[in-house]
Amino acid sequence: MRADGRAVDELRPITITRGWSDQAEGSALIEFGATRVLCTASLTEGVPRWLKGEGRGWVTAEYAMLPRATSTRSARESVKGKIGGRTHEISRLIGRALRSIIDLKALGENTVVLDCDVLQADGGTRTAAITGAYVALAEAISWAHANGVIKANVKPLVDTVSAVSVGIIDGVPMLDLPYVEDVRAETDMNVVVTGSGNFVEVQGTAEGAPFNRGELDVLLDLAVAGCAQLTTIQQETLEAGRGR
Amino acid sequence: MRADGRAVDELRPITITRGWSDQAEGSALIEFGATRVLCTASLTEGVPRWLKGEGRGWVTAEYAMLPRATSTRSARESVKGKIGGRTHEISRLIGRALRSIIDLKALGENTVVLDCDVLQADGGTRTAAITGAYVALAEAISWAHANGVIKANVKPLVDTVSAVSVGIIDGVPMLDLPYVEDVRAETDMNVVVTGSGNFVEVQGTAEGAPFNRGELDVLLDLAVAGCAQLTTIQQETLEAGRGR
Amino acid sequence: MRADGRAVDELRPITITRGWSDQAEGSALIEFGATRVLCTASLTEGVPRWLKGEGRGWVTAEYAMLPRATSTRSARESVKGKIGGRTHEISRLIGRALRSIIDLKALGENTVVLDCDVLQADGGTRTAAITGAYVALAEAISWAHANGVIKANVKPLVDTVSAVSVGIIDGVPMLDLPYVEDVRAETDMNVVVTGSGNFVEVQGTAEGAPFNRGELDVLLDLAVAGCAQLTTIQQETLEAGRGR
Amino acid sequence: MRADGRAVDELRPITITRGWSDQAEGSALIEFGATRVLCTASLTEGVPRWLKGEGRGWVTAEYAMLPRATSTRSARESVKGKIGGRTHEISRLIGRALRSIIDLKALGENTVVLDCDVLQADGGTRTAAITGAYVALAEAISWAHANGVIKANVKPLVDTVSAVSVGIIDGVPMLDLPYVEDVRAETDMNVVVTGSGNFVEVQGTAEGAPFNRGELDVLLDLAVAGCAQLTTIQQETLEAGRGR
Amino acid sequence: MRADGRAVDELRPITITRGWSDQAEGSALIEFGATRVLCTASLTEGVPRWLKGEGRGWVTAEYAMLPRATSTRSARESVKGKIGGRTHEISRLIGRALRSIIDLKALGENTVVLDCDVLQADGGTRTAAITGAYVALAEAISWAHANGVIKANVKPLVDTVSAVSVGIIDGVPMLDLPYVEDVRAETDMNVVVTGSGNFVEVQGTAEGAPFNRGELDVLLDLAVAGCAQLTTIQQETLEAGRGR
Amino acid sequence: MRADGRAVDELRPITITRGWSDQAEGSALIEFGATRVLCTASLTEGVPRWLKGEGRGWVTAEYAMLPRATSTRSARESVKGKIGGRTHEISRLIGRALRSIIDLKALGENTVVLDCDVLQADGGTRTAAITGAYVALAEAISWAHANGVIKANVKPLVDTVSAVSVGIIDGVPMLDLPYVEDVRAETDMNVVVTGSGNFVEVQGTAEGAPFNRGELDVLLDLAVAGCAQLTTIQQETLEAGRGR
Repeated sequence: MRADGRAVDELRPITITRGWSDQAEGSALIEFGATRVLCTASLTEGVPRWLKGEGRGWVTAEYAMLPRATSTRSARESVKGKIGGRTHEISRLIGRALRSIIDLKALGENTVVLDCDVLQADGGTRTAAITGAYVALAEAISWAHANGVIKANVKPLVDTVSAVSVGIIDGVPMLDLPYVEDVRAETDMNVVVTGSGNFVEVQGTAEGAPFNRGELDVLLDLAVAGCAQLTTIQQETLEAGRGR
Repeated sequence: MRADGRAVDELRPITITRGWSDQAEGSALIEFGATRVLCTASLTEGVPRWLKGEGRGWVTAEYAMLPRATSTRSARESVKGKIGGRTHEISRLIGRALRSIIDLKALGENTVVLDCDVLQADGGTRTAAITGAYVALAEAISWAHANGVIKANVKPLVDTVSAVSVGIIDGVPMLDLPYVEDVRAETDMNVVVTGSGNFVEVQGTAEGAPFNRGELDVLLDLAVAGCAQLTTIQQETLEAGRGR
Repeated sequence: MRADGRAVDELRPITITRGWSDQAEGSALIEFGATRVLCTASLTEGVPRWLKGEGRGWVTAEYAMLPRATSTRSARESVKGKIGGRTHEISRLIGRALRSIIDLKALGENTVVLDCDVLQADGGTRTAAITGAYVALAEAISWAHANGVIKANVKPLVDTVSAVSVGIIDGVPMLDLPYVEDVRAETDMNVVVTGSGNFVEVQGTAEGAPFNRGELDVLLDLAVAGCAQLTTIQQETLEAGRGR
Repeated sequence: MRADGRAVDELRPITITRGWSDQAEGSALIEFGATRVLCTASLTEGVPRWLKGEGRGWVTAEYAMLPRATSTRSARESVKGKIGGRTHEISRLIGRALRSIIDLKALGENTVVLDCDVLQADGGTRTAAITGAYVALAEAISWAHANGVIKANVKPLVDTVSAVSVGIIDGVPMLDLPYVEDVRAETDMNVVVTGSGNFVEVQGTAEGAPFNRGELDVLLDLAVAGCAQLTTIQQETLEAGRGR
Repeated sequence: MRADGRAVDELRPITITRGWSDQAEGSALIEFGATRVLCTASLTEGVPRWLKGEGRGWVTAEYAMLPRATSTRSARESVKGKIGGRTHEISRLIGRALRSIIDLKALGENTVVLDCDVLQADGGTRTAAITGAYVALAEAISWAHANGVIKANVKPLVDTVSAVSVGIIDGVPMLDLPYVEDVRAETDMNVVVTGSGNFVEVQGTAEGAPFNRGELDVLLDLAVAGCAQLTTIQQETLEAGRGR
Repeated sequence: MRADGRAVDELRPITITRGWSDQAEGSALIEFGATRVLCTASLTEGVPRWLKGEGRGWVTAEYAMLPRATSTRSARESVKGKIGGRTHEISRLIGRALRSIIDLKALGENTVVLDCDVLQADGGTRTAAITGAYVALAEAISWAHANGVIKANVKPLVDTVSAVSVGIIDGVPMLDLPYVEDVRAETDMNVVVTGSGNFVEVQGTAEGAPFNRGELDVLLDLAVAGCAQLTTIQQETLEAGRGR
């Protein structure tokens, strides 16, 4: 039995608020239980210098956490004057995940920056960020279509993408770990899956004892099933239209 | 006539959501129209090294803006590796404002860090931050009383504090400027006022033509009246109790 | 009675040495009692990238303090690897003050950098810096006229500017505070005034008890009268010609 | 057929030179084909402040690349003044890998820093680093036994660890990718395996098309078989004794 | 014939103003022609952590240049966020030079920081800094004697020290190069000499053609003779007493 | 008698491995006893912006030390976020030394970056770096000739260069100091000499007692003789051809 009463293969309550921002081309406030991440997509014309003239666009991501998103306050990375390894690693992961489902040629020479700011953290912030960033990105692509930045018959999004964490606690594989479970997990895995069910990223780490092939298989099953549910929620949110 | 239909001495719609954070000792999401600032108060035992053993507490503040709080995206200060002059200046202003109404002796050897993160910016973010930070601070002091960190008969808060911007646009002094007015203002002034009606800070700047004594007097009148209304809203929020 | 025997509305001895530098287009070593600030104006053709092609010039300022300007040595900001909030805030203030009296269109696509380095600090360094920077700027404009960088009939300076600090010590409003008074002031205010008597900047801060409207009015009167005297000294210095 | 004539399940020539350094407690120069990584283990008494008094040791790693390890020169991270995301990510990976096979209690309050400096890069530098770092670590533990820093009957190493890269090129899963294959891989996976055959880390990334479950299974099979061979080479090297 | 009419073995006019600072324990404004360096000596009780409890003191130096010390403005190192190689190199040189003539045991557990700030630069700033820093240091030691920080019969200064630049221009060895000569020199040498005539530092660099042994000998002769004159000026200044 | 049995005027065993790198245009692993420095020369077309269009090339150098090159581990400069004074100073020295024997006009608009990474340090790393960097540079120039980047009849190298350390230990001048001698030296001198026997750089520092003219002369004699031997070894290495 889990502390919050969920089954081992059950997601926390998921809420996605589309169009949270009045300023960004796309945005979503995503909640996985008490984890809340504000995702914005900033779409601008032009690409970084190293891509110029190649007829392709660029998608990149930046992840950050507010200092009091966690139970004790952390110093700001801006104050420390440098970005920590964990932040870098997650930003790169989000960027790769979102680039996996976009056709950069179809995007044209446009750049999308996905900002994922964790307002409150309770485990699974990076996977929530990927899941929310997809909604913000889709909204920004709609904006680009509506505003003539991308032609109506050009479809940069070739699939959808979502992500979830899984892990083994006391020998039991479980889906979608909140902080209290995450710190106790022997193995921790983040899985990024497309809407069509293929893997974009599999990152499994033994925090305690190494894991065997059988455990790996069960974890992958849980993650694939969890992402299928997230895909449905993403689609429902996008069909329901903007609104805070 | 102002773009949003307000009278020259009228505030934008003000909303304060107390207890927005599940993690912080005190918190408030404050909205001045489309400006939204998340304020958290982190209260911890102990003081910075330079204050140790003096029997006094410390209150400090940090202000920051999400990259897409504004109409075009700004680079993160953590990525740039340094904090800009504007951020420093506002953080220091918020800290001074909140320290003006707290008795650091009564606070005991405890530290409160006020984090004011602008989620969306539409003018007046620093004054909204001060006004919201007061609510977060008051909530944190209640928490300290409830948890025995500060004795029930010790009252660190000696007054309340709020702040508002005023400015002269096309020769007309006005209260609470949104971004569209702020960029056009000839004179811009931020005023921090205690609940008892005295000044903590008066910062007036001629952005265009220098201003005369008569104009200064009208701006101060507008600001004092605006802060009186903010004081009332703060008190109502605190009396209504926590809740998101 | 003040420690140095001055009346409450009396300035410290003011000395301005024009043309202190053999290298800069304009320069002044200004002394307010023991406070000594070396101000240089570097005038170069061209403007920052973001201003190019707009037919306007730019004026900016940088303030700094030598490590042993003060009674105990401070670490250099270059060694610490970052500029502190106070330095940023004062640099920005000086820049705004000097831009308020210059017609950037008349300056043409030229840039003036005002460097204000505090060689010795005894209170009022930022206001001394503004007052001295005006002399350096005026000298640089003369240099530009003499060297054909700006045409003789084009007058970029539309007014003069000076600044002074005022404050309340033991309930008594006073003009031009040296360090011993500054640390004891309940309220501290820096006022920047044009030669024609209007305000460019009013920055009043309650260091101890908040201040009321009556006190604010007395402080402003003191500052306006002090700046009028500084304006006279500036003019006399500029008329007397260069010389170290 | 691979460019270097290898079978799809064949490792490049592997060379491990133990005791390359005269200074470090443990060291190994490891070569995977043209990839050369110098791994040193610095064992010192004491632990970081946050671990003090807990009776446990600490193992951490730092990865870096010489500027001309690659075919075109990269700027030094020391000159740029910050460490890039890739460096951070790999350093963290190596640290986790080595901590997975060490009993930190048995290590006692000692710290081991594993420095992995890439002298020449031709793909697979992070997995070579892990494989070489294990040899350096084992040598440092022998040194600690020989010098009485750890008692003879205390065995901090609970297993061995090695790592290898696998990937899919033109639809074909392959073991141990050199640079020319790595840049063309659709999927790239780094796998860290213990001597007893369990997983410490599985990091698979779709660089091009997402991958399916079947492909994942083949990649894992290749990696497990490759690591088994690396384990044998590590053991032979350690049994053969020190020597450059 | 030199541009300023001097003989090849003649120093520029040298002026040393002792006690320029009201704040520092020792200070001197030194001028070598148009080169002006403000040297302060800050003497404080205590030593850096790594020297604690060894009964010895410490002397260190920091060199810097105001942005407009030179004919064109340089960016501040504090703004750039890092100290350049040249600044580091000169700071280290000055520190070594001054430590060479002080008995750190006799200094006791006290620290002297020598700040050498170039107010105006016209060649030879590092050698002027060393020569002036000696006067500031001697004044600070007198202050320590007068204030009982060092006992009257303890003499930390075991010799005096001065420095001068020499160089070869158009094949002619010359003493004390101003900027116009320095940029044209084929060989440039800075020599630090004690009052008793021994070398502390010899730093000769071929900027153009390498130099031979005969040229090196002539340069050393010029430098030793120049430093003997500087030693006399230092002594006269110190005997004349403080005064700005 | 020296600890390693050498005569006072005897070099340590010197080994130079040409062509150590498969990637760089030129490279050499140089060993002076236990000191090992990997030198690579990266030759690329084009010059830094400030040199463009002048028809001249550029040669620069960067020196660094691996963290465990020394008997105790040092923190990485990339992790500390800044380069220390010593690193800067040595990088600049190497750059000047190599530029002294190259005709930048003949190099054409090409840039050579010399990276000198100390893999193991036992005294004399900077002089070993210069001596090895010359071999790497010569190899890169050969590469440029072979690849048509520089015409066959154009000879950018106008001389050869090598360097060695000398010092006085217990009053005895000695050649080529390993670490155990270096830390005890009263005077330490690094001398850079061309193949034709002239000086490029003479850097003598009194670490303990100042040195006199006679001592300086003996040190220079030792250094010149040592460099003559190094010149021979460099030539033999270059004639023997590439090979690891």
